[in-house]
Amino acid sequence: MSELKRVYNFNPGPGVLPLEVLQEAQAELLNFKGTGMSVMEISHRSKEFEAVIQTAEADLRELLGIPSNYKVMFLQGGATLQFAMIPMNLRAAGASADYVVTGSWSKAALKEAKKLGAVHIAATTESENFNCLPDKYDFDPKAAYVHYTMNETIHGVEFFNEPVVPDGVPLVCDTSSNFISRPIDVSKYALLYAGAQKNAGPSGVTVVIARDDMIARTPENLPVMLDYKTLAESGSLHNTPPSFAIYMVGLVFKWAKKMGGLAAMEKHNREKAAIVYNAIDDSAGFYRGHTVPEARSLMNIPFRLPSEELEETFAKEAKKNDLIGLKGHRSVGGMRASVYNAMTIEGAKELSKFMADFQKRNG
Amino acid sequence: MSELKRVYNFNPGPGVLPLEVLQEAQAELLNFKGTGMSVMEISHRSKEFEAVIQTAEADLRELLGIPSNYKVMFLQGGATLQFAMIPMNLRAAGASADYVVTGSWSKAALKEAKKLGAVHIAATTESENFNCLPDKYDFDPKAAYVHYTMNETIHGVEFFNEPVVPDGVPLVCDTSSNFISRPIDVSKYALLYAGAQKNAGPSGVTVVIARDDMIARTPENLPVMLDYKTLAESGSLHNTPPSFAIYMVGLVFKWAKKMGGLAAMEKHNREKAAIVYNAIDDSAGFYRGHTVPEARSLMNIPFRLPSEELEETFAKEAKKNDLIGLKGHRSVGGMRASVYNAMTIEGAKELSKFMADFQKRNG
Repeated sequence: MSELKRVYNFNPGPGVLPLEVLQEAQAELLNFKGTGMSVMEISHRSKEFEAVIQTAEADLRELLGIPSNYKVMFLQGGATLQFAMIPMNLRAAGASADYVVTGSWSKAALKEAKKLGAVHIAATTESENFNCLPDKYDFDPKAAYVHYTMNETIHGVEFFNEPVVPDGVPLVCDTSSNFISRPIDVSKYALLYAGAQKNAGPSGVTVVIARDDMIARTPENLPVMLDYKTLAESGSLHNTPPSFAIYMVGLVFKWAKKMGGLAAMEKHNREKAAIVYNAIDDSAGFYRGHTVPEARSLMNIPFRLPSEELEETFAKEAKKNDLIGLKGHRSVGGMRASVYNAMTIEGAKELSKFMADFQKRNG
Repeated sequence: MSELKRVYNFNPGPGVLPLEVLQEAQAELLNFKGTGMSVMEISHRSKEFEAVIQTAEADLRELLGIPSNYKVMFLQGGATLQFAMIPMNLRAAGASADYVVTGSWSKAALKEAKKLGAVHIAATTESENFNCLPDKYDFDPKAAYVHYTMNETIHGVEFFNEPVVPDGVPLVCDTSSNFISRPIDVSKYALLYAGAQKNAGPSGVTVVIARDDMIARTPENLPVMLDYKTLAESGSLHNTPPSFAIYMVGLVFKWAKKMGGLAAMEKHNREKAAIVYNAIDDSAGFYRGHTVPEARSLMNIPFRLPSEELEETFAKEAKKNDLIGLKGHRSVGGMRASVYNAMTIEGAKELSKFMADFQKRNG
């Protein structure tokens, strides 16, 4: 077994996982619960795997307070496949859907929906280079749904209140990069979805939480793997599910409960984000955050340095100090610190210390 | 770490994985190649993950002898999503596709293709309860493609020669349950696909091998996760891929090479299958194979006992003897032994011994 060296992982996704979750997976990788098989080798129809998927769902329901008239699905294809499945299932032929565009991901969702039918942009902050939330909306009261992205991973913009949509218009939300990072009121949503590979597990599984009346919208004759109705009714077991990824998100949900649930997780996440934002704000302009203060994400913190050369040096030196994954997305430039659930306070402090030290040497 | 108890795993999929592959994954689960991160935590854009996916592809190309005018993709959604993606990408509007139906899986592929356009059944063995290969075909010379299933997991029917299709008609094949179990001539195919969870890894990744002219057929405006062109051009990295599952199939490909490649694998698989088929044939009718001898699968061996009561007892007693996953699919009934690549000769012998002993006590 290789020596236990671990770094501070600020990757935007796949991202850091809780150490104890990885240790549990490692310990039972060859013999899951005494079966004499890996969890990867057991049948998805076995009682052992049923316990895995049912416990994962029950723990998620408890964490998020999911009402009983919502189904939970564990699907494949990432959030990007949901960009297409949502209009396929929820937008009837001829109807239009509203999109709120606050960054690269909501823009990508819009693009997919547009391929398949009519869309309307209810708000966009593109002219501000996606550094803020919309200050006004132009909702279509007849929209099939309103789609928004609760946290923009690339631009570091997070909604802390749901957009107020017209009465009766279902609210659909991509919560990939702030999933289970804090409590939310699920009852305000018609459908929520999240690729797991940021706060909830490895890549390869997408959690979809959908209200029963949304699932009832699924039209006839959709390909079965794109059909919410079939997928929900089969308990995500129409075909072989991504068993190991589901097992891992189950371990993460259990860990989140043990950490005190989502209220405790929010406290932990606010504390970490404050450490990094303070390092930016206390730098007298050496570090510049991308996002306006009131829309600052608790998960993804993009920031710039005085020059691209310094940014290069920063990334290299950070890496030497075991601070990994800090290079920003090319569309924003600069750096980005992703401080997901599993990032420790210690990690945030190490980054803040490094930032202050780097500034002293280069400011 | 839990004690190393391992059973003989005859599950139809997810199925048995090579012990040394699991051990390697376990050893580096917390620290992948000295990165200080799990392979689940590294960026899919990192040089470390690039090495994972590129090595997996290179090893597969070597194992199967994939010509350079074919792309290899690592996708999500299982073979079942391919049932829809194939007609979406390869069958132009108004065109028809031919289907050869030899069991539950080819029938499911037909059903999905039918939802999306015109199909023609070139052959079916349904009236024989899928216990044989077709003895004649009625191919449409203008078909967009011919689809067949090389090995039917449920019915235990395997093609050892490709159906001879009309000149110029592309041959498309589901090889999920006999993937990398023996050499095949890839150049006879336009597209091959396989869910990994039988011979090649855990569930959650599907390998698609497509000739360039097939990828060129992709129409405009498909949802991006259903679009072979985009997926192939991005090297399966349009969005976050199922990293851990790709890592695992990479380890399995490396193991298969170490075992001597696919010619050696076929020898190993023929030896194992013979052990089980001999146990059936030497039982004077106590055990009855589902499949006619010339179509017998090397991977999945369904068989019946004299009564359903005896079948129940057989499954229970087998389990007590650490022979797991032998219950057949309800559509065929009885038992099924899946003897994939990673099943050992020792495992097949243990099963054969148990079968003889069970017959002695109950015959």
